[in-house]
Amino acid sequence: VSEHIRVVCQQLDPQAGSGAANQRAATEAIREAVSRGGDLIVLPELATSGYAFVAAQEAADAALPADAELFEEWRAIIAPAGAVLVAGFPEPAGTGKPYNSALVMDPSGIRHLYRKTHLWDEEPRWFRPGDDEPVVIDTPAGKVGVLICYDLEFPEMIRTLALRRADVIVAPTNWPVSPRPETERPPEIGNVMAAARLNRVFLACCDRTGTDRHITFTGGSCVIDPDGWIVTERPGRDAGVLVADIDLRRARDKALNENNDVLADRRPELYAAVTRRS
Amino acid sequence: VSEHIRVVCQQLDPQAGSGAANQRAATEAIREAVSRGGDLIVLPELATSGYAFVAAQEAADAALPADAELFEEWRAIIAPAGAVLVAGFPEPAGTGKPYNSALVMDPSGIRHLYRKTHLWDEEPRWFRPGDDEPVVIDTPAGKVGVLICYDLEFPEMIRTLALRRADVIVAPTNWPVSPRPETERPPEIGNVMAAARLNRVFLACCDRTGTDRHITFTGGSCVIDPDGWIVTERPGRDAGVLVADIDLRRARDKALNENNDVLADRRPELYAAVTRRS
Repeated sequence: VSEHIRVVCQQLDPQAGSGAANQRAATEAIREAVSRGGDLIVLPELATSGYAFVAAQEAADAALPADAELFEEWRAIIAPAGAVLVAGFPEPAGTGKPYNSALVMDPSGIRHLYRKTHLWDEEPRWFRPGDDEPVVIDTPAGKVGVLICYDLEFPEMIRTLALRRADVIVAPTNWPVSPRPETERPPEIGNVMAAARLNRVFLACCDRTGTDRHITFTGGSCVIDPDGWIVTERPGRDAGVLVADIDLRRARDKALNENNDVLADRRPELYAAVTRRS
Repeated sequence: VSEHIRVVCQQLDPQAGSGAANQRAATEAIREAVSRGGDLIVLPELATSGYAFVAAQEAADAALPADAELFEEWRAIIAPAGAVLVAGFPEPAGTGKPYNSALVMDPSGIRHLYRKTHLWDEEPRWFRPGDDEPVVIDTPAGKVGVLICYDLEFPEMIRTLALRRADVIVAPTNWPVSPRPETERPPEIGNVMAAARLNRVFLACCDRTGTDRHITFTGGSCVIDPDGWIVTERPGRDAGVLVADIDLRRARDKALNENNDVLADRRPELYAAVTRRS
């Protein structure tokens, strides 16, 4: 594993009800990301299905099992390059509603399925929440943790992945546009900047863009370094590709100076309230 | 208790080794804050002593017990106005090193002493860390929680105060200048903006300014609203007063929309890693 890796986020514009077109666009985006030299390729949340469902059946119909032919097609694209892919899609959850999931795939196949644990707005109408703590996967592109969109708003989730020594927290997102002062960044980006800095970890957020039925999205894809600064935040509101070259070793040094370390300085004996029901 | 309160932060420039002058300046600053109509008056960390100690004895010599005459003088200034004061000072801790403390005082006297639990850089050479979880004090200026400077870098501490229903987290700080891209705010401010938003709570940070021996400070005082936006961030790098009028009720509504609530949406059963030793 080289410590110098290239992250490529593909900020797509999938549309609910257009599964076949979304899948073609996602596959094409992965192919392009490989051609751009991506070691760690990220697609948005629900890249294959779009977001703005209006009936539970739509989400169920769009669900793709882990052994779907599409994913084998993706594996065949990333394998020759030795790349790692993180991409969001609806995943069947046995009976009933699917999960809002993201796969972590390397040349050997699917290594992990993360199922979004904090559901946003109407999502409980279409999705079942995941019930597993976030974990870190040792991949050819470093130690990778996955969160999906609203999960990022819970500092406990990011902290858990940092404590498990993630180099990069990869987050497929679908950030709806929210009001903000004209001079400010989208608040979601301010949040991940702070999270990266407080945990000295890389954050790679692949957002979506465009309008899907009644919802318009931020197009806020960004890669943040362990000091909390933005490495790359192109392409802004447009669909397109974001490329960021990062040195994973920066996330393995948690020191702030000779005397402070963001993880070693924690005092977990004082944090018990965080694990109680409010 | 009115829900509309005026926060006044006094960004001072105390100097280590000049206790009498620091105390006079702090007392004058409290008097001015009262004349500005402050309901909640905040002074920086270690306002009476300065920060840049070079020997343990300096901190011990600067320590002030809770029954110090100075504090009775302060109480007499805030009492006619019914104001609440939060101010940082070194507090004797029995034998040995003092605490880096902040008092919460209302017209009845000192209501609480918070002792900094996460010590920065050389502070363990001069200070003993506090061992108590942060608590919320019900004051005439709302439900107030206190953290000191580096404590803010631990999201668990802010979360604990939000779960305990703080309206305002008041933070005396001494933020040393740190490198940042020219177009960015001090990273400490980005952090408290995110923290305010993720917990839907007010943050009132009273920083210090100037150069104290070998350390130059940020002058980053700011009051942040529960959406994570800055209410006021004057006076910038200069010493001086910051005034922010806030409606505490905004911090009591944790809803983001009809379906989401920053505290109710938490899943503490997934956060156990946060309370384990790393």
